[in-house]
Amino acid sequence: MALVNHQIILAERPKGMPDSGTFKFVKKDVEELKEGQILVRTLFVSVDPYMRGRMQDAESYVEPFKVNEVIEGGSIGEVMESKSGNFKQGDVVIGMFGWQEYYVANEKEIRKIDPSLAPISTHLGILGMTGLTAYFGLLEIGRPKEGETVVVSGAAGAVGSAVGQIAKIKGARVVGIAGSNEKINFLKEEWGFDEGINYRTAEDLESEVKRACPDGVDVYFDNVGGEISDAVFTQLNRYARIPVCGAISTYNLEEVDIGPRVQPTLIKKSALMQGFTVGNYSERFNEGAMQLGQWLQEGKLKYRETIKEGFENIPNAFLDLFKGNNIGKLLVKVAERKYVE
Amino acid sequence: MALVNHQIILAERPKGMPDSGTFKFVKKDVEELKEGQILVRTLFVSVDPYMRGRMQDAESYVEPFKVNEVIEGGSIGEVMESKSGNFKQGDVVIGMFGWQEYYVANEKEIRKIDPSLAPISTHLGILGMTGLTAYFGLLEIGRPKEGETVVVSGAAGAVGSAVGQIAKIKGARVVGIAGSNEKINFLKEEWGFDEGINYRTAEDLESEVKRACPDGVDVYFDNVGGEISDAVFTQLNRYARIPVCGAISTYNLEEVDIGPRVQPTLIKKSALMQGFTVGNYSERFNEGAMQLGQWLQEGKLKYRETIKEGFENIPNAFLDLFKGNNIGKLLVKVAERKYVE
Repeated sequence: MALVNHQIILAERPKGMPDSGTFKFVKKDVEELKEGQILVRTLFVSVDPYMRGRMQDAESYVEPFKVNEVIEGGSIGEVMESKSGNFKQGDVVIGMFGWQEYYVANEKEIRKIDPSLAPISTHLGILGMTGLTAYFGLLEIGRPKEGETVVVSGAAGAVGSAVGQIAKIKGARVVGIAGSNEKINFLKEEWGFDEGINYRTAEDLESEVKRACPDGVDVYFDNVGGEISDAVFTQLNRYARIPVCGAISTYNLEEVDIGPRVQPTLIKKSALMQGFTVGNYSERFNEGAMQLGQWLQEGKLKYRETIKEGFENIPNAFLDLFKGNNIGKLLVKVAERKYVE
Repeated sequence: MALVNHQIILAERPKGMPDSGTFKFVKKDVEELKEGQILVRTLFVSVDPYMRGRMQDAESYVEPFKVNEVIEGGSIGEVMESKSGNFKQGDVVIGMFGWQEYYVANEKEIRKIDPSLAPISTHLGILGMTGLTAYFGLLEIGRPKEGETVVVSGAAGAVGSAVGQIAKIKGARVVGIAGSNEKINFLKEEWGFDEGINYRTAEDLESEVKRACPDGVDVYFDNVGGEISDAVFTQLNRYARIPVCGAISTYNLEEVDIGPRVQPTLIKKSALMQGFTVGNYSERFNEGAMQLGQWLQEGKLKYRETIKEGFENIPNAFLDLFKGNNIGKLLVKVAERKYVE
């Protein structure tokens, strides 16, 4: 009897904020393994803000999702059965198999991870794309120097919290912008940020940034765009650097996002703004992952995961990203490992 | 009897477009030379868009002009009398003595130029700050590669025309944006631009940019900001670079300039935007000036000057910058050299 695969497909492209109608649960039999293929059972799936962009039918740095096909995304799974000499039952693997319970993988689509080094979920977070995004964006574009002021928006999120900690490791003074007092406390007490700004309760964001950054802003790691970024822009120092990583404030807008043009500020401050995606640095992923792993082992880098349980909760977990309620990396645990030694 | 110095002072800070009330002509006796000082008679003054910024009482990369003081700016003059061993009567010098007929200079405020190399006015243009702005902005930030498409706005202006020609020297395909068919013809026929866009007659600027740049835009040298830049942004290629040199479309606005936010495009394209001013590269001015001089001698780099005559016409020449009528570098000739050998 064939194994039944539960999948979540893109039912329709959302206009504005996605909702339950955006996704559809379907069942499909798992196909027979061919020579060289591996049957993987999903353990964890990652939900990330950038996936909203892929739901649009617009040119971007990654292909748009196709309607009626499984939502792709970073996932970790366990090998159930293998017709490849490179994988065996019980191996823990990472890939982009996305929002489904089972996946028939070709060898090049998955990569083994070592479950003895750190909790396996960290390979979707601090040791994976999230950590690498923070690492390369901050160090290659932001280039913080000792004593400089680094501001991070989306600071309690997966990328932001790593950015702040790496900036601290590099000797910078770090100010995080986030959306609740609970998050601000967490930033300061758990991750060692020097200052926090709650953008939801701030009466005047510009003066809050000024208060928190009396020496101005040398690096602004931008995860959000919109009015928060406008406020930080007013406090840039000469030669400021702005890695532009995300613009979550705009992802669900139906109109073009309008705001003060940045050109005059960039000229006045000789400031640099650079958009990036982690894939730009793919040739250096090993270097980054090794450094992040070392900092993790040394206790210099901490992470927090918010793990939701259950395959059926994946769409809601994704939608939670835009409500701003989670701290750290948001994941969904789909199943327990079966073949733990 | 003391020599009378005619000066133009900032009468009041303009709101919006400067007008005749912004400036005031005054007379003042020239002071006696002290030991080490040099009396300079102005021959040429430069009028430049960036000077509009200095009329504002706002923090910028250069000090604001002071009300009731002489308007400072790049000038070339002739030494009339010298109490310095480093300068003698008849020397041609360059400095920031600005909008006045005479200036009592200290040694460090002026620098000799060699009038035998090129017309002396070129030291305020293609061999001076203008040429250096184009040189460093394009080559250090834009970094055009052979075969890439470079778009320049304000292309018929002093900086823009140099940018386009340097990009051609580097093997790029060059598209200029300017405000009249006369300018477009000039760009193509005189300066070797491959394509031109007349932003004033274009029905849809975005599709005009698309037409002129079938392979997209790799480098956008931005002299103007505003809607012209918005249109170019829609056609950026992956890893595009945008030296932000000027935002002349905004200099006379009384409100903050609003437009589409750039963050989403920067992310999608992994694009870089960097503001700069030529002073950032002051340690390398000699290198730049030598290279520009060599290209000029080899006939690879051409320039055009629009020279107005007469001290009394300086304010109008400055205001002409914002009407977009001039081609190339705009200068005012104040006097003839007296001590030509």
